[in-house]
Amino acid sequence: MGITRAGISVVNLGLESFAKSLEEQKVGVIHVEWRPPAGGDPEKIKLLSLLERDEVDRANREGIERVLKSQPVLVGIKKALEAIPGMREDMFLHAGPPVTWDRMCGPMRGAMIGAALLEGLADSPEGAERLLRSGEIIFEPCHEHSAVGPMAGVISPSMPVFVVKDKALGNYAYSNINEGFGKVLRFGAYGPEVIKRLRWIEGTLAPALAAGIEEAGGIDLRNLIARALHMGDECHNRNVAATSLFTRAFMPHLLRAGLSNDIVGEVAKYLSETDHFFLNLSMASCKAMMDSLAGLEGSSLVRAMTRNGTEFGLKVAGTGEEWFTAPAPFVKGLYFPGYKAEDANPDLGDSSIAETAGIGGFAMAAAPAIVQFVGGSPQEAIDYTREMYEITVAKNGNFTIPNLNFEGTPTGIDVRKVIATGIAPFINTGIAHREPGIGQIGAGLTRAPMECFEKALKRLAEEFG
Amino acid sequence: MGITRAGISVVNLGLESFAKSLEEQKVGVIHVEWRPPAGGDPEKIKLLSLLERDEVDRANREGIERVLKSQPVLVGIKKALEAIPGMREDMFLHAGPPVTWDRMCGPMRGAMIGAALLEGLADSPEGAERLLRSGEIIFEPCHEHSAVGPMAGVISPSMPVFVVKDKALGNYAYSNINEGFGKVLRFGAYGPEVIKRLRWIEGTLAPALAAGIEEAGGIDLRNLIARALHMGDECHNRNVAATSLFTRAFMPHLLRAGLSNDIVGEVAKYLSETDHFFLNLSMASCKAMMDSLAGLEGSSLVRAMTRNGTEFGLKVAGTGEEWFTAPAPFVKGLYFPGYKAEDANPDLGDSSIAETAGIGGFAMAAAPAIVQFVGGSPQEAIDYTREMYEITVAKNGNFTIPNLNFEGTPTGIDVRKVIATGIAPFINTGIAHREPGIGQIGAGLTRAPMECFEKALKRLAEEFG
Repeated sequence: MGITRAGISVVNLGLESFAKSLEEQKVGVIHVEWRPPAGGDPEKIKLLSLLERDEVDRANREGIERVLKSQPVLVGIKKALEAIPGMREDMFLHAGPPVTWDRMCGPMRGAMIGAALLEGLADSPEGAERLLRSGEIIFEPCHEHSAVGPMAGVISPSMPVFVVKDKALGNYAYSNINEGFGKVLRFGAYGPEVIKRLRWIEGTLAPALAAGIEEAGGIDLRNLIARALHMGDECHNRNVAATSLFTRAFMPHLLRAGLSNDIVGEVAKYLSETDHFFLNLSMASCKAMMDSLAGLEGSSLVRAMTRNGTEFGLKVAGTGEEWFTAPAPFVKGLYFPGYKAEDANPDLGDSSIAETAGIGGFAMAAAPAIVQFVGGSPQEAIDYTREMYEITVAKNGNFTIPNLNFEGTPTGIDVRKVIATGIAPFINTGIAHREPGIGQIGAGLTRAPMECFEKALKRLAEEFG
Repeated sequence: MGITRAGISVVNLGLESFAKSLEEQKVGVIHVEWRPPAGGDPEKIKLLSLLERDEVDRANREGIERVLKSQPVLVGIKKALEAIPGMREDMFLHAGPPVTWDRMCGPMRGAMIGAALLEGLADSPEGAERLLRSGEIIFEPCHEHSAVGPMAGVISPSMPVFVVKDKALGNYAYSNINEGFGKVLRFGAYGPEVIKRLRWIEGTLAPALAAGIEEAGGIDLRNLIARALHMGDECHNRNVAATSLFTRAFMPHLLRAGLSNDIVGEVAKYLSETDHFFLNLSMASCKAMMDSLAGLEGSSLVRAMTRNGTEFGLKVAGTGEEWFTAPAPFVKGLYFPGYKAEDANPDLGDSSIAETAGIGGFAMAAAPAIVQFVGGSPQEAIDYTREMYEITVAKNGNFTIPNLNFEGTPTGIDVRKVIATGIAPFINTGIAHREPGIGQIGAGLTRAPMECFEKALKRLAEEFG
């Protein structure tokens, strides 16, 4: 009879009974209660009013301008020791805020053991563990070296890393290369097949990719992210579109790079099997974007959110290099067959740099198919993005979301807005098994801990006396 | 303040003022008026009641079962003369229902001239035109030879064609190979660069693709379509996801096919530049699916909808090989810079086999980004799909739409439902310039002409006395 149904955005501010009636008709509705800022907490309200000042707004405007202007380009692949500033022969980088061996979670310990074996610093896992426990190896966060790594995020000196340059602002960011699925270092596996794959990445994949990147004269990552957001990726937990676009654009260059047919074939096979290949490039792009906020005095914009599996860490533009930490939260999501919530490690990895930059969980409205992987409904995916507009200062016109009438992604988390609204940032992420080496056991959603933002707010307020 | 907005589906059946108020709040709403079947037309109501019978329902159930079971696989590439049943040395196939030279539209005439030059049957466009006008070349619809071609859809004997096999049902379908953008035969261009590209396709691209397909042991097209529908394609007017997925999956096979690095490089370059490469594979897949309805007595399901730029043609499962035609409609959409509605040719091409099979315009809810290309809003894209459920008999569980909570695409157009509801099928398509050789000048939406369905309804009713 020509009956069509239209998706409609409704906010019910008044009669709850109207909302109930809509719910009974199986249409989604959110009942909004008015809440006082910061839940009415007098201490927070005081800090917030102290920070409601032009200087902060001005610094944030300057900051978001940098972020939106940022144009990350993949310019090469280099050995970590040569590429990453401050990297040392005796240093292993890791995801999240700083952590000592005794507090490290299972998957990160496993990855550290694997890295020691890869570097030839030990002959056995036991020997590697002794070395790592001895204090002879320095552990530092990737984030303190312009780098990011998914899950355990371990980068050791000989590993090849992507070199991403922000063409607009000139800064660099780095990430390791995605290992694919199965037993992988980032989930704490360190068996012979893991080491073998890492050696293949170092010896075969990385030089081939580097030759192709050089032939191409660099690859515009901002453009790939923008297109992937129109193709169902949010570029954190779903990267199949970006990986496919990358592969399709990259193959002609790889084939002109003077490599043997066999090598090109191995690379093509790896790219065809590695749906999350682009994740590490997305992360390095976001790192380059957000590091443009470094040293921006007075700004309440978030520069980094990251997890080491033990703690969650937050960095804010206006508070220098200080980490604001809280226990890492657990992830609520869907588990692969055979696994359950008790098997899960708390939230882990630098990949939440995606959300920090306004994609990932912040762009879930662009990726409705992802709910098959992380749980929830496509409508909820749209709601998550809408909610994130409440705590951000801009919409990124470079990254638009078709499902939201091509609105830009919610970008630039303002610590003040997080506290005022009580809305913590969403993070859309993988779930690691708590034991080293078992790997990914699911995927889902979590929120950044409020405690980190409360600490940051206090410190920001101190800056203004 | 934690205010989020939820997308809600509302049908307003009652007070128009409520709908108006929602509209004023800038939320989408569709006001539904109750209408009598077939607009109350007594003649149509009589025919409809004659066709409201178990035999028709049973035939349609049998038909849709075949369509949903269908599993198109790309199994090879062959010369049209060798592959296509009934093809002859002196035969050129074309899009749409049958048409004579004197009634052919500009782009199709141009494509025919190009084909005559390609086949070496003439030395000049003038000579080609004399030959084509002479009656020495037989013109027949692709559709009558298990084939489909986009726009002019001209297939001449020496052209290579994709061979698609329905693995479930055993039938075959064929399509030519996409030429890419710019001056192309399908839009009626026939200059030297067009012929040169067609010879490259025949001499280089087709043999290489064929070798890769053989190495792969065939490529599952249903799976690629299903994945692309989760990635913003509707597989008619947007094919970038499917083309990228195809390329990424195909490259390792191409590299193992024993070809030279140069040839593989040329193919990779072509694939990287041809966003609509997959269109012709999508079309052949849909043709294979819908030809499963051939000869299904009593069924009111649509088997083909197609346009030759002069007429629109409809085939119905239960009425054998008869065409029900009407003047080809114009397409409403967005024009490329420098072009306007007066430049447009009426609707053209076999590509509406996509809609016939439940994708393309029927799956626009899967492809919200396409509105930047065809006009309208993402909400309208969702509404188009919702409307098509009104005239179809099934949801295709193989092809699901994330934005509609993973509902299957609306599949199996029932002539009775089209007449009863007065809703004509949507078609999402390109717009050709009316002069040969200028090419695509826009893209947009149109509806299949009701007249074809009215004729088909009458003939179906005659089958039952």
